[in-house]
Amino acid sequence: MYNNTFGNIFRLTSFGESHGKAIGGVIDGFPAGITIDEDFIQQELNRRRPGQSSITTSRKEADAVEFLSGIYEGVSTGCPIGFVVWNTNQHSSDYDNMKDIYRPSHADYTYTQKYGLRDHRGGGRSSARETIARVVGGALAKLALKQLGIHVTAFTSQVGIYRLDKDYTQYDLSNIEKNPVRCPDPELAKIMEEYIFNIKGEGDTVGGVISCVIKGCPVGLGQPVFGKLHAALGNAMLSINAVKGFEYGQGFGSMNLKGSQQNDIFYNDNGNIQTRTNRSGGIQGGISNGQDIYFKVAFKPVATILMEQPTVDIHGNDTVLKAKGRHDPCVLPRAVPIVEAMAAMTILDYYLLDKASHL
Amino acid sequence: MYNNTFGNIFRLTSFGESHGKAIGGVIDGFPAGITIDEDFIQQELNRRRPGQSSITTSRKEADAVEFLSGIYEGVSTGCPIGFVVWNTNQHSSDYDNMKDIYRPSHADYTYTQKYGLRDHRGGGRSSARETIARVVGGALAKLALKQLGIHVTAFTSQVGIYRLDKDYTQYDLSNIEKNPVRCPDPELAKIMEEYIFNIKGEGDTVGGVISCVIKGCPVGLGQPVFGKLHAALGNAMLSINAVKGFEYGQGFGSMNLKGSQQNDIFYNDNGNIQTRTNRSGGIQGGISNGQDIYFKVAFKPVATILMEQPTVDIHGNDTVLKAKGRHDPCVLPRAVPIVEAMAAMTILDYYLLDKASHL
Amino acid sequence: MYNNTFGNIFRLTSFGESHGKAIGGVIDGFPAGITIDEDFIQQELNRRRPGQSSITTSRKEADAVEFLSGIYEGVSTGCPIGFVVWNTNQHSSDYDNMKDIYRPSHADYTYTQKYGLRDHRGGGRSSARETIARVVGGALAKLALKQLGIHVTAFTSQVGIYRLDKDYTQYDLSNIEKNPVRCPDPELAKIMEEYIFNIKGEGDTVGGVISCVIKGCPVGLGQPVFGKLHAALGNAMLSINAVKGFEYGQGFGSMNLKGSQQNDIFYNDNGNIQTRTNRSGGIQGGISNGQDIYFKVAFKPVATILMEQPTVDIHGNDTVLKAKGRHDPCVLPRAVPIVEAMAAMTILDYYLLDKASHL
Amino acid sequence: MYNNTFGNIFRLTSFGESHGKAIGGVIDGFPAGITIDEDFIQQELNRRRPGQSSITTSRKEADAVEFLSGIYEGVSTGCPIGFVVWNTNQHSSDYDNMKDIYRPSHADYTYTQKYGLRDHRGGGRSSARETIARVVGGALAKLALKQLGIHVTAFTSQVGIYRLDKDYTQYDLSNIEKNPVRCPDPELAKIMEEYIFNIKGEGDTVGGVISCVIKGCPVGLGQPVFGKLHAALGNAMLSINAVKGFEYGQGFGSMNLKGSQQNDIFYNDNGNIQTRTNRSGGIQGGISNGQDIYFKVAFKPVATILMEQPTVDIHGNDTVLKAKGRHDPCVLPRAVPIVEAMAAMTILDYYLLDKASHL
Repeated sequence: MYNNTFGNIFRLTSFGESHGKAIGGVIDGFPAGITIDEDFIQQELNRRRPGQSSITTSRKEADAVEFLSGIYEGVSTGCPIGFVVWNTNQHSSDYDNMKDIYRPSHADYTYTQKYGLRDHRGGGRSSARETIARVVGGALAKLALKQLGIHVTAFTSQVGIYRLDKDYTQYDLSNIEKNPVRCPDPELAKIMEEYIFNIKGEGDTVGGVISCVIKGCPVGLGQPVFGKLHAALGNAMLSINAVKGFEYGQGFGSMNLKGSQQNDIFYNDNGNIQTRTNRSGGIQGGISNGQDIYFKVAFKPVATILMEQPTVDIHGNDTVLKAKGRHDPCVLPRAVPIVEAMAAMTILDYYLLDKASHL
Repeated sequence: MYNNTFGNIFRLTSFGESHGKAIGGVIDGFPAGITIDEDFIQQELNRRRPGQSSITTSRKEADAVEFLSGIYEGVSTGCPIGFVVWNTNQHSSDYDNMKDIYRPSHADYTYTQKYGLRDHRGGGRSSARETIARVVGGALAKLALKQLGIHVTAFTSQVGIYRLDKDYTQYDLSNIEKNPVRCPDPELAKIMEEYIFNIKGEGDTVGGVISCVIKGCPVGLGQPVFGKLHAALGNAMLSINAVKGFEYGQGFGSMNLKGSQQNDIFYNDNGNIQTRTNRSGGIQGGISNGQDIYFKVAFKPVATILMEQPTVDIHGNDTVLKAKGRHDPCVLPRAVPIVEAMAAMTILDYYLLDKASHL
Repeated sequence: MYNNTFGNIFRLTSFGESHGKAIGGVIDGFPAGITIDEDFIQQELNRRRPGQSSITTSRKEADAVEFLSGIYEGVSTGCPIGFVVWNTNQHSSDYDNMKDIYRPSHADYTYTQKYGLRDHRGGGRSSARETIARVVGGALAKLALKQLGIHVTAFTSQVGIYRLDKDYTQYDLSNIEKNPVRCPDPELAKIMEEYIFNIKGEGDTVGGVISCVIKGCPVGLGQPVFGKLHAALGNAMLSINAVKGFEYGQGFGSMNLKGSQQNDIFYNDNGNIQTRTNRSGGIQGGISNGQDIYFKVAFKPVATILMEQPTVDIHGNDTVLKAKGRHDPCVLPRAVPIVEAMAAMTILDYYLLDKASHL
Repeated sequence: MYNNTFGNIFRLTSFGESHGKAIGGVIDGFPAGITIDEDFIQQELNRRRPGQSSITTSRKEADAVEFLSGIYEGVSTGCPIGFVVWNTNQHSSDYDNMKDIYRPSHADYTYTQKYGLRDHRGGGRSSARETIARVVGGALAKLALKQLGIHVTAFTSQVGIYRLDKDYTQYDLSNIEKNPVRCPDPELAKIMEEYIFNIKGEGDTVGGVISCVIKGCPVGLGQPVFGKLHAALGNAMLSINAVKGFEYGQGFGSMNLKGSQQNDIFYNDNGNIQTRTNRSGGIQGGISNGQDIYFKVAFKPVATILMEQPTVDIHGNDTVLKAKGRHDPCVLPRAVPIVEAMAAMTILDYYLLDKASHL
């Protein structure tokens, strides 16, 4: 799908601008009979919410979700689930000086060229505030996946040049939510946090990498040849604001290793066919093989910096931009639940697609 | 789309197994009135064809395309273009010893688990021979893009640890087709070629990276928020066999640079709004901004090696596999036209989607 | 598309149950730059609103639409248009006695079997209250079509056995909105109105036919072979509650006429190619030919009657149902704007699809 | 889906023109593990084949299907099934005099206007020869449905003014294939046959109605609200050449009956909930209810008549057309298997969609 709908069977259609009335969406294709734990959903939103720590934007927003349909007596009915999250703390005047200006490395110029106009306030539709709808969709998907024994966990693995040097199996993932950076290594987390705090003080921004692992995925998810599971995951991740790259399994690395060194050898583990290594990243030929699925997502530094930048206005005149407002110095900590949400929706969608692949 | 259809408006639906009667497909949504240069299309297939040099598989196949519909008096009619490429040089007996064996890091296990059976000969549907249909679709897309002044060029930028150390603007891309590796640096190309040749001698394989640049893309292609242009390109690339990663613009690199160092500054170039740098990779907010679009694609080493590997058979018994047959030691040189094909189809599809976005 | 999304490029995704919090939706793919006349949209909703005359249900609902996104300073931005219509006058207790009962010729049984549960209040998702979202989408589509000179007009052409005996060209369509039945023949309208009023008094219901004509449609809309324009229109109409049939052009009638009597002869009308008759209904080979497009839609009598009916409950026990509540004796008058809405959305969608069919 | 792809999960993408090299297609989403009875598929094609009786066109074509992929050792593999039917008996010169002429009530004018050119030979893509691909897809779908106990049967119920006056339950459907008209009433079949024969002698054509019944469909197929099962069936039928109308259940008729007379009363039949009547046509709220699904499809007279007709050419000049060639005086007998094919594909698609609706 394209535009504002994500997914094939499980489908999220989202709407809303940063400074409009609300962010919201419709989730279609969600199976009936699933208990909707609204507290869990709100917790997921809280993980994404601004103002949660000293290294995120200081904006305060309730980001409380209101469900409008598709749930009856606390259980999903199979009908579309409409929802809204009202925008309550918009300072649109912060953007008055940007109304006619193209902010560097933002979507202002391209939206204006494509559509002939744009809602400039807070980035309008191109704002990452749009990802609220993704987190709601992802939280619902997680509720369904939980019944299937599938769990999705993401974490910050790199901020600037600071990064985890071992793979995910070497860390205690229960540490992730214990620090504001959402990094499973407590020592590195502190270094990252301090680094981001300093960057924030400079009015500058920094990028990094989020890693994600999916455990419990059954064998057989993936729709060859254009619907390979990792292609769907990559598409999902690349649709998140500020994402510049996706890799799974061995990815871009290990180019010094030959085929004979990289192949994952099968063996029989008491009746279960397993692989001795998992360089494939849990997917072979585009179809899950029952091993952990893991991948990495690269985020660029946030484009909004609190420093002067030369640019042009919509009339083509030279000008200088100095952003006001409350912005994130590093998007990674708040993007962790977004990565999880996109992964959860993709896996649920592919689970349902796989069901439709058999008589 | 998923399964065996690629694209939204311009759509390629492909079929065919490595050792079946034919590879083929249907291209729907191709605009009417375009002169179909069959020689050009065949040349594109020849760039992908096995046996073209000493560093590819020694299989010889004509890979001649036969068009069955949608073209009248040499011009596209707007009706679906059906085509077949007959399989003529299959040595199915090479695979007899693999019928019941799961080859490591291949799709044998996952296909069998998903579908309950598989055509084991040459990998069946999971074989990269399937990409023939992509090259045909891509060649048609290129013919349409040419009329729009859009050109897609890919090249090998890394083989094993050997890689180009400068960006694409620093090389003469007309060198690409002058060496069997398809690398624009003639010196490095020789080193890569020799390296691949040696790997082949060992019966082993090696991976690498293909880079791609799209020039002449107009401003405005891309469908926010889930249809971002780079998400579509990433999805397209990740659907190619053996691909493990995709990045565009600054990608996974440059994490030492802050936002203030990475933003692309706009300026007015005699009435055209341009950016002084292009770290964004020609796409901002998911929409093309008129600068070059460029990205990289990581390929793992081919899984088929001519060395003994332990594995299990379909009954779960331990066994040892030794592949016969004629295989590529490195998929990169032949994958260059496939990367171009996927990029060309994506851009044409998004060009048409953009047309549908306006009254 | 299927489930709760309608359309290919212009797409309406709707949500909401009869007695839930709200009916709403997201309209994606609506072109940017169109002035949104909210008064017009509300008028369209008012044409569908219950309680508008003595021959509709006596329920009173404001059915006021609230737009949440996609519109900036009164103009569409190309971003998704989210909207809600709050439910304000639900008497859910009217349905208490039906909670465990399968109402005859309703969706109670099938929804329960398919989903394992249902929201029984007012029919839940299967209620025609869902069509509010269609009318909003249709009103937006009409605003876009107006700029293209395309106009959609529907009217009641049959109620029970009372029907117009001439074709639409023989009536003054400006009479339609002058009577509560929405029939262009004032005399017949009175007879129909009286008939419906009497049926209402009996606690019974009656069906009929709505006719629709689309004027100003350019030549070339329609996507062969499975996307024929009339197939899309038929699909749209058949998705409306209570619809049992669709025909266009000569339809089921005129079977006494041979091919030589039915063919539409082309002639040159001062440079414009026209047809002397229009038995084809404005579509040939699935593509609009520039003549008026016209079709008919059959509606069954509303299933809810205020009379005792034997039925079974969800446990399979025999029981007797006597509906309470406020119901329409005849759905036709209020369905006229719904038919127009579905037609308008289809035509706009196909207009945009046609744009994507050309380079 | 639109253009040349039919279906959502089970999808047929077809290609080919009447006088091109071949008609063919790709069937994607066909479940693995189904034995492919090629004799049965060929028999279905033979039911559609020209030249089968004195009341069809005298063209002789083998219409032999050749499968190219997706079947291994006689069993479907879950991979796309490519197929071709070679065109062998084209008399393209029969159409030389029509190259520049717009035939009345054909697609010549609309295709030319939409695409700027057309393959005029035998109607090109707009020819009903395209339906060969549908019959192949339908035959495969029937093989899958047979395993589910679902059976689709269509028959000619009206030719010109001659029609069956009772509903399908009153006839012995095993008579259908015993006469060339495919009407279950042997007496009426003779009258119809003679009538068509006479029409053929006049060089004229005649229309009619095909009825279809689907038995054994489980409860629960159908995707509300825009994916109602009957809306999908209607869309499928209206995509067939020459179809002008679709109705199911009570359809356009019985408008003299009130709601109290038309509702289908539920009762408990030894533990199975059944309806005493089936005016709903086996579908309630867009979802199958386990009763027989039945519907009717109206066909106009074939537009090609062997009589002189005034028309215009592509330059707008007045001219007179006299068709040559071998044509059907009545499309009904050969359209019976096409109606069945579209119904079978729709039901299989919706069966698979329903599977994807549940966790």
